[in-house]
Amino acid sequence: MTMDEATPLKVALLGCGVVGSQVARLLIEQADDLRARIGRPLELVGIAVRRLSLERPGIDRALLTDDAMTLASRPDVDLVIELLGGIEPARSLILAAIGAGSSVITANKALLASDGGTIYAAAEAAGVDVYYEAAVAGAIPIIRPLRESLVGDEVTAVMGIVNGTTNFILDKMHTAGADFASVLAEAQELGFAEADPTADVEGYDAAAKAAILASLAFHTRVKLSDVSREGITGITSADIAAAREMGCVVKLLARCALSEDGTIAVGVHPTMVPVSHPLAAIPGAYNAVFIESRHAGRLMFMGPGAGGSPTASAVLGDLVTAARNRVRGARGPAESTYSARGITPAGRVRSRYYVSMTVHDEPGVLAQVATCFASHQVSLQAVRQESEGAEARLGVMTHQATQEQVDAALSELRLMPEVHPEIAVMRVEGA
Amino acid sequence: MTMDEATPLKVALLGCGVVGSQVARLLIEQADDLRARIGRPLELVGIAVRRLSLERPGIDRALLTDDAMTLASRPDVDLVIELLGGIEPARSLILAAIGAGSSVITANKALLASDGGTIYAAAEAAGVDVYYEAAVAGAIPIIRPLRESLVGDEVTAVMGIVNGTTNFILDKMHTAGADFASVLAEAQELGFAEADPTADVEGYDAAAKAAILASLAFHTRVKLSDVSREGITGITSADIAAAREMGCVVKLLARCALSEDGTIAVGVHPTMVPVSHPLAAIPGAYNAVFIESRHAGRLMFMGPGAGGSPTASAVLGDLVTAARNRVRGARGPAESTYSARGITPAGRVRSRYYVSMTVHDEPGVLAQVATCFASHQVSLQAVRQESEGAEARLGVMTHQATQEQVDAALSELRLMPEVHPEIAVMRVEGA
Repeated sequence: MTMDEATPLKVALLGCGVVGSQVARLLIEQADDLRARIGRPLELVGIAVRRLSLERPGIDRALLTDDAMTLASRPDVDLVIELLGGIEPARSLILAAIGAGSSVITANKALLASDGGTIYAAAEAAGVDVYYEAAVAGAIPIIRPLRESLVGDEVTAVMGIVNGTTNFILDKMHTAGADFASVLAEAQELGFAEADPTADVEGYDAAAKAAILASLAFHTRVKLSDVSREGITGITSADIAAAREMGCVVKLLARCALSEDGTIAVGVHPTMVPVSHPLAAIPGAYNAVFIESRHAGRLMFMGPGAGGSPTASAVLGDLVTAARNRVRGARGPAESTYSARGITPAGRVRSRYYVSMTVHDEPGVLAQVATCFASHQVSLQAVRQESEGAEARLGVMTHQATQEQVDAALSELRLMPEVHPEIAVMRVEGA
Repeated sequence: MTMDEATPLKVALLGCGVVGSQVARLLIEQADDLRARIGRPLELVGIAVRRLSLERPGIDRALLTDDAMTLASRPDVDLVIELLGGIEPARSLILAAIGAGSSVITANKALLASDGGTIYAAAEAAGVDVYYEAAVAGAIPIIRPLRESLVGDEVTAVMGIVNGTTNFILDKMHTAGADFASVLAEAQELGFAEADPTADVEGYDAAAKAAILASLAFHTRVKLSDVSREGITGITSADIAAAREMGCVVKLLARCALSEDGTIAVGVHPTMVPVSHPLAAIPGAYNAVFIESRHAGRLMFMGPGAGGSPTASAVLGDLVTAARNRVRGARGPAESTYSARGITPAGRVRSRYYVSMTVHDEPGVLAQVATCFASHQVSLQAVRQESEGAEARLGVMTHQATQEQVDAALSELRLMPEVHPEIAVMRVEGA
């Protein structure tokens, strides 16, 4: 062994929560394997925490510091792992680490989705790596396949179940027939949903991941603010039942796709998916990402979407890759934004829709409804009418239409005296 | 643009069959995108073919040569794509390319599984890359996730449907109730099976892929000769029906797993998989790989397992990665064999088994059979007996047992006058 092979690469860890403490533990437990895989040992030199006083079983107290900036800026450190989440102080710490010559491993989807460009540019200028496999879909390798494996192909669409909490809730609503509020309460009790569930159930978490996936898939910088977003708080038992009648399940899908004009449609919406589609079968807290590309065709990746161990696995995979790069004097892929596509305005995004309404059960009403859709260029694929005394339930599956066209048709329908103004509408994908 | 950014990286292509011609076409069609993603243009400088006279639509005849060795050895070439398959001349050509300083992209599973060590060692010595995503499971990114994403984790098992031809045949046997010979004939007519189907239906193709997956998953050099192998030619309609009765389907699984003693069990066998397992639902010519790891948990990857376009997508992804490495003066990961684990002898590999036999329908026979299994340390999880006049069909699901133990029990059972000597036996995984 030469001197060089024995010299450790120094690692600083920012954050010691569920994922961070697992990473710290594995760095010790797996030290021999990691050393063999990298070619040099890793040495954890410090862990930045918010509260020094907290009991942390299995963590060496001597490593702890509450001065994250000093730790992140150490010039002798090679690799900085950022697991604090949120925009600040994470951004300043990452930029300081890059400025000090460290490569960075982060799981910070919110930061990358809102200001990733600043981070990548700083890394490129400093000649260091930024890896972030753990930012999307936990342990499922999806960043690396998009950034490297599919880089010789043309991705046309990415659809994913990328938030385990909402998938757990929707799954329970399907299997137990329960309503949103009671399932959310159960999920909170089980620890599958946070006390403040807004980021999950309103789709913000999934939207950040959608922005990251869209950026990689389409070689364009896509930001969180580019993502149209709709959560699952409005999903009712009736929506779930309607989906089942159509042979579908409701999933919160993050979707990015090339529109016909070359812009990128990117959004998070509750979506009906046929039970025959692979995404329909993804259970509970699992995640899955479905990719359509011109040459590779349809690919799907599934696995645990969250949790300390799976996320730590993704972080350590990146850590070994970044460390190997250090040892070999190599570099990982840089940000690729050459394509610089625009974002499809939300109203112009095309999808199929399922529209459910109650109408007077009278001759001519169906014709009126159909005429209204047609007048807004929305053509219908299937119609289902069921009499319920003086009223009828009308379910309509459209062909591809823009959100604007469907909204315009619905506005007009709501004004018709024969139609109840409460109309339920949901996107349909994967047919 | 600097001079350097305009200077092309030179690419040589060895082989111009279904995949090669698609690669050649895409290098031209996608030239602008590839250039933007790499940072420099690619220039295809030659294509080695066996028969110069063959008509090749869309391929510039001036690029063709039948002198593969001269093309592969050109010192001005940066990247050599080997799509000839087979051991020779592919090995000599790849070694010549590496010797001349080129990075190599290959889809050659047979060569890598039988003599990958020679290739990787030559590449390491020359400081060039070898990428081979297309060698296993077509367009599905599986090499890169194992080599990089999961490199901070401990993989415990990999199970895959990695041969589309056999999956198509088994699928048809299930859905159409047809027998092996007639489905094989249909598959040959449809182009899903070759005129000589031996490599597919006898499991050689899957065994080569199993060796490659095992090498990556367990950081050990695993060779084709280490893989125990059983094809699907012996699978009968009765086997398929028995699987269905047990709530299973039959799949040809390539499986590698850590045995309790730290050695690697690696084999290809027709295997019963419960219909609830994600691998059970993989249809037709699709491939899927299921990974179990200590921290990431259970992951699955699925997609098209073969075909010109999907395989070309995998080749081009590797080509862009290797080209980016050239531009950035970087290197991809080297072979990792530090773990140097042994191979579990075939007889010692543990699995669950389903055993189906016909016995005399007399008192005491079931007890005799059960006693026989017990005397060979095979414990039974479930037993199912159905009278058919003077005889009874007996189906037995075992707990985990070694192949030796089960074989010994079966040898003894075959000697019993109450048991018909034709006993069907199949592994069961994924419960």
